[in-house]
Amino acid sequence: VVETSGGGSYPVRIGAGVLESLPMMLEERVRSRHLAVIADDRVAGLHAGRVMTLLEGSGHRVDLYTFPEGEASKSRKEWARLTDAILEGGMGRDGCLIALGGGVTGDLVGFVAATFMRGIPVVQIPTSLVAMIDSSVGGKTGIDLPGGKNLAGAFHPPRFVLIDPELAATLPPEERAQGLMEALKHGAILDRSYFDLLRADAKDLLDGEVAPTVRAVRRSVDLKADVVGQDEREAGIRQILNFGHTLGHALEAESGYRLPHGTAVARGMVLEARLGERLGVTRPATADRIAAAVRDFGIDPTVEPLGRDEVDRILRHTERDKKVRDGATRYVLIEEIGVASPADGWSRVVGSREVEAVLSFPGGETV
Amino acid sequence: VVETSGGGSYPVRIGAGVLESLPMMLEERVRSRHLAVIADDRVAGLHAGRVMTLLEGSGHRVDLYTFPEGEASKSRKEWARLTDAILEGGMGRDGCLIALGGGVTGDLVGFVAATFMRGIPVVQIPTSLVAMIDSSVGGKTGIDLPGGKNLAGAFHPPRFVLIDPELAATLPPEERAQGLMEALKHGAILDRSYFDLLRADAKDLLDGEVAPTVRAVRRSVDLKADVVGQDEREAGIRQILNFGHTLGHALEAESGYRLPHGTAVARGMVLEARLGERLGVTRPATADRIAAAVRDFGIDPTVEPLGRDEVDRILRHTERDKKVRDGATRYVLIEEIGVASPADGWSRVVGSREVEAVLSFPGGETV
Repeated sequence: VVETSGGGSYPVRIGAGVLESLPMMLEERVRSRHLAVIADDRVAGLHAGRVMTLLEGSGHRVDLYTFPEGEASKSRKEWARLTDAILEGGMGRDGCLIALGGGVTGDLVGFVAATFMRGIPVVQIPTSLVAMIDSSVGGKTGIDLPGGKNLAGAFHPPRFVLIDPELAATLPPEERAQGLMEALKHGAILDRSYFDLLRADAKDLLDGEVAPTVRAVRRSVDLKADVVGQDEREAGIRQILNFGHTLGHALEAESGYRLPHGTAVARGMVLEARLGERLGVTRPATADRIAAAVRDFGIDPTVEPLGRDEVDRILRHTERDKKVRDGATRYVLIEEIGVASPADGWSRVVGSREVEAVLSFPGGETV
Repeated sequence: VVETSGGGSYPVRIGAGVLESLPMMLEERVRSRHLAVIADDRVAGLHAGRVMTLLEGSGHRVDLYTFPEGEASKSRKEWARLTDAILEGGMGRDGCLIALGGGVTGDLVGFVAATFMRGIPVVQIPTSLVAMIDSSVGGKTGIDLPGGKNLAGAFHPPRFVLIDPELAATLPPEERAQGLMEALKHGAILDRSYFDLLRADAKDLLDGEVAPTVRAVRRSVDLKADVVGQDEREAGIRQILNFGHTLGHALEAESGYRLPHGTAVARGMVLEARLGERLGVTRPATADRIAAAVRDFGIDPTVEPLGRDEVDRILRHTERDKKVRDGATRYVLIEEIGVASPADGWSRVVGSREVEAVLSFPGGETV
């Protein structure tokens, strides 16, 4: 159960086979009789048939809408097209959307729901590991703008979340690894024993074994729900979930979004841990421990030393970050694995020369 | 003070000259150092200079953005353009928007604020009487879609509202009359003595006398704030604010939006009162009393008897209303002036034959 700032809460059901409880959960939590299942074309091919069959005979009117797979669909254009399509399909303020898919789907469909007739309910059914571990919980929705990712959006908590790891059964190990970087992050900021457990389970998690996957998803969702329940709108402690993301997003942008998000966050965590070490906030050797954990999942945490121009571009990317406050880029640092630094309201301003030093010698050498 | 569903509240300051308190209110209620004043080009010409001067030397960075006057600006296009413009201007998550203008401005700028980086604060400074009396309070924001008005939007309560009737000093009486129709509605659903006071003050209100205007705005805001505080998201009692609006919106749409909103709502109230009389819910002669009050403000409440085709089109418009639930159009009815009918959750389904009868004989004759 996740608490929302409105004083409400929503349940998150996690387990192999929980998808079957969809009709019952709708009955309990959503009064709408008119449902729209929205998925990208790939996920629709894999799972929409089963979801539609589940809802058959439930007394709901159910329509299916699809959109092209990929981050490019997190656009104003696709938001407008889907909004017009469900409107055309007769959806009213008493309708409910079901977001079936990965992070892009959850964000896009969540934003359609948040803004449709000033907000209609949405149910999140994640099908990717990163959405199960991270993005389906917390109520963030949004689309990308020409100026950057997630720049238009809203907080719109789902009515409920169904996380059924069986929906992710067909994912290749490399994609699982990407999602598990957010789990490592949860361990790094909040729970050292979880961090160690993930390393111990790495091989099974990459292989898609159900039991350790359910265990990890459950732990990550519990950790995140606790943080989000304290601070849904990211005014305080929720910021710690951005560990690794300030530099991670900048690396991602600098690569023209060719670098996968998980890899970018992993490298961002290593760099931000080095930054903390340099500032005397983070216990020595923490960055190396994170790098080792990242390698356990087959992801290369190495950032080559960057030249003057690249460093400048990275710094410029961080200045356009949503986390900028009073014109200064803010960083979440950890004290050690499992302990985020409370700092000044859970984030702090770091001088660009310190960041520059870390980016110029990302292996940890000092000048 | 208006309560919000998030457990917070926001102050509404009403009075001649309260605009002067803008810097102090910003200091107290908004931490942002970066402000964007947004107005349509006409209002910017009238009032932006004064607002910018007031904020000079307040330690804020203040930018001014304008957009073309008129309902056509409540569009996805203008929402996107303003969002990109403030982003380009360096606005971050720590910024704040100031909506300076009438209903269109409040709705549009409110929606930009609601969706910018998942929501930044907005301050409402209404300059039209309808915005002062009605739309600046309550947190509704939105834009129009090809499929209808206000179909995309969000609930995004302002940080505070400053209502300074001096900003409306230059409005012509006909425009004041339009805004006062919402005040009559507040009286009709909630407060008979207010309804009578408005009639008694009609001439002074149309002339723009400050004292009765402040009195009316204050009473309307108090009445509305009380309703909104009980039910921000219009799940229950807030629906009573839609009295006159189900048929009013349909008349407006049927006219291709040539009929002014206030006139449409006035006629909608008369028709919906007749509907209530027909159904035995509304005390006889109530519709005539509303019609007389509307005439006091120089607005013609008369709807000519409609033919078969027109009635069908009106009914079709009501079926596309946001208030439709389970496929049925819902109406707010009153028992008498000042008393909304609790009905089935403050609104009720009315058979289309009853509506048809009223539209065919809007003068009140029965078959």
